[in-house]
Amino acid sequence: MPAPPDFEHMWRQLAPVGRSASSGGYFRQPWTSAETELRSWFAEQCATRGLAVETDGLGNQVAWWGDADVPGVLTGSHLDSVLDGGAYDGPLGVASALAAVDVLRDRGVTPARPLGIGVFVEEEGSRFGRACLGSRLVTGATTWDEAKELRDRDGVFLADAVADAGLDPSRGLLSLDRVGTFVELHVEQGRDLVDRGAAVGLASEIWPHGRWRFDFRGQANHAGTTRMEDRHDPMLTYAMTALAANKQARLSGERATFGRLAVEPNGTNAVPSLVTAWLDARASSDDALAELVASIERQAGDRAGRDGTSLAVTAESVSGSVAFDPGLAARLAALGDWPVIPTQAGHDAGILSAAGIPTAMVFVRNPTGVSHSPDEHAEAGDCLAGVEALADVLAELTGAPA
Amino acid sequence: MPAPPDFEHMWRQLAPVGRSASSGGYFRQPWTSAETELRSWFAEQCATRGLAVETDGLGNQVAWWGDADVPGVLTGSHLDSVLDGGAYDGPLGVASALAAVDVLRDRGVTPARPLGIGVFVEEEGSRFGRACLGSRLVTGATTWDEAKELRDRDGVFLADAVADAGLDPSRGLLSLDRVGTFVELHVEQGRDLVDRGAAVGLASEIWPHGRWRFDFRGQANHAGTTRMEDRHDPMLTYAMTALAANKQARLSGERATFGRLAVEPNGTNAVPSLVTAWLDARASSDDALAELVASIERQAGDRAGRDGTSLAVTAESVSGSVAFDPGLAARLAALGDWPVIPTQAGHDAGILSAAGIPTAMVFVRNPTGVSHSPDEHAEAGDCLAGVEALADVLAELTGAPA
Repeated sequence: MPAPPDFEHMWRQLAPVGRSASSGGYFRQPWTSAETELRSWFAEQCATRGLAVETDGLGNQVAWWGDADVPGVLTGSHLDSVLDGGAYDGPLGVASALAAVDVLRDRGVTPARPLGIGVFVEEEGSRFGRACLGSRLVTGATTWDEAKELRDRDGVFLADAVADAGLDPSRGLLSLDRVGTFVELHVEQGRDLVDRGAAVGLASEIWPHGRWRFDFRGQANHAGTTRMEDRHDPMLTYAMTALAANKQARLSGERATFGRLAVEPNGTNAVPSLVTAWLDARASSDDALAELVASIERQAGDRAGRDGTSLAVTAESVSGSVAFDPGLAARLAALGDWPVIPTQAGHDAGILSAAGIPTAMVFVRNPTGVSHSPDEHAEAGDCLAGVEALADVLAELTGAPA
Repeated sequence: MPAPPDFEHMWRQLAPVGRSASSGGYFRQPWTSAETELRSWFAEQCATRGLAVETDGLGNQVAWWGDADVPGVLTGSHLDSVLDGGAYDGPLGVASALAAVDVLRDRGVTPARPLGIGVFVEEEGSRFGRACLGSRLVTGATTWDEAKELRDRDGVFLADAVADAGLDPSRGLLSLDRVGTFVELHVEQGRDLVDRGAAVGLASEIWPHGRWRFDFRGQANHAGTTRMEDRHDPMLTYAMTALAANKQARLSGERATFGRLAVEPNGTNAVPSLVTAWLDARASSDDALAELVASIERQAGDRAGRDGTSLAVTAESVSGSVAFDPGLAARLAALGDWPVIPTQAGHDAGILSAAGIPTAMVFVRNPTGVSHSPDEHAEAGDCLAGVEALADVLAELTGAPA
């Protein structure tokens, strides 16, 4: 069998899939042709390495190396992207997992515990609005009966999108029975490692975070003839809320973002009847997050009173604080003297950790901190350092049976 | 020949066409099936009255009663709507024109001058962003070579939309050679007539108005991990601009509205890279309008500097002040002791007036002033008063050959 492609070769294979010619960013939404292509690519990579891949009824994938009847170590990440996202968020963890297997084999390591490589679907929630949907369904954090009613922007039900991609959830979902430990490698999405001068780090915790839908309702009217003082314009209520959210988060060192909007009727010469805006908020503790969102909602409600508009706020998903297994992080950090840092981003690792699986995350330095953007980047040398670090971590974790 | 349907019967025929079951509003965008249905309805109405309708290569329509070789009087309006608009804006003028012909015939009037009923396409600019597109093309205010490159929200070229509707602009456009005077009846889009206790009024002038596209560019980034102080978020620049535009217009008694937005990538967990917002602005003079827009642009630019974003402003359409023929307005107002009032809304009447055709407008009272909204309304009694007033106006104008 020829040698499998090395990390840089795999990276070149992934580069064109789902890429926008105009922005250079990626549109790898789940259950689309781009994702189907990525799923095939992953299956081929596993086959090239002599590993049989299982694809579950949703599109989650796993390939196991070794079949000893002891708890295994799963590593991996996701292949989907946000809308117009970067190349690294997700795929770096998958390609690094494959490359780490090659490193272990080159080192002559035979894991005493089974080593699995996994890919979870719809991590970003970019299509159905529910982040980490694949891992949530696999762990039972979300049920299929609840999820199948989700709709994408075009009104397509999740159940139909999955069926259209040739998948069938009634065939069953990935089993985590063999997973004793989970390790996810990910590009850093901030600049902590830059500030610390480290190519690689480990995660201590994930900030609590969530998404809230704000529906601002007013009265549609003619943009020319309606006197300013006769209007009930929900765009104004929204605009003040967006500024207030930013200010509130800035003052408290937290995060609040309105990055997604839908306006009705969205006509140039009509005062809108409805502005729907989605708040992404994150804070260092569950209490701080609740207080942040309550403060934004309170300011929005006060302004709605002055504008003669109304406000309804719906929590679409809220994830509590996740502290990764501190003993595990300390043990692994010692392997490379790597810093242990928090993150504000949600990950499948957070879902598996919350489900009681000892979990660790390996971060690779991001020179600008930019992520969820075509400008997202990691230096090739840092990516290779990440592969070596992941191999060290996996060697440690699979080194001896329990 | 049976009697043609009366005004209320015509109104019931129009009621379901292009209506949204959920909002109750109308989606009668040009060159769609709803508009094709309305065009057929108009042709049938003309046929029922023994009038032959001509449809030009764009879909503009006209039917003439009488063929004397003297300057004629054209009356009519449009049948398209804004997105989720009301029933009255446009169709009231067309149905009233047809009903006024019936009134004149009932009165035994035979016009000494030809009397035409016309319908202009894409008055609202709701699909291709150019208001009064039909009348602009007919008068030469816009050329086909320029217009055919316009695209709708789905990227469809105007030329293709027109061809898909079975029309062919190379067949030629409506001729205005026979039009000595134009009269448009329209629902009022404010509350001037309510305040004056009058069911009917005439127009003195149209305020100058226009549409400007504001492109706010920033840098896409992760909504969770990017510190607030590291962002270049164009949503904030936009939000401040929307509030500033409202305040500026409120203080000066003018109009400024941001009712249409497009956000990229429009993902909940991404700081946007681009917010495009359309400003609709109107003022009592050309200078006041220029000053209003300049002030909004200046405040937006200052904020962009503070946010680390950039701003580009493009004038998409600007219409100067239109004063309707004052002698004509005074002569017609005397027929019914009707008030003569200004309007802030653009109309095909403004385009024909600017092209040198003596033009008048008849307004029908709107009890709430609400327009461009499913809530737009006029009382049946006021609509019938409008028909009688229009018949009086047309009798006066067609009463004697030149």
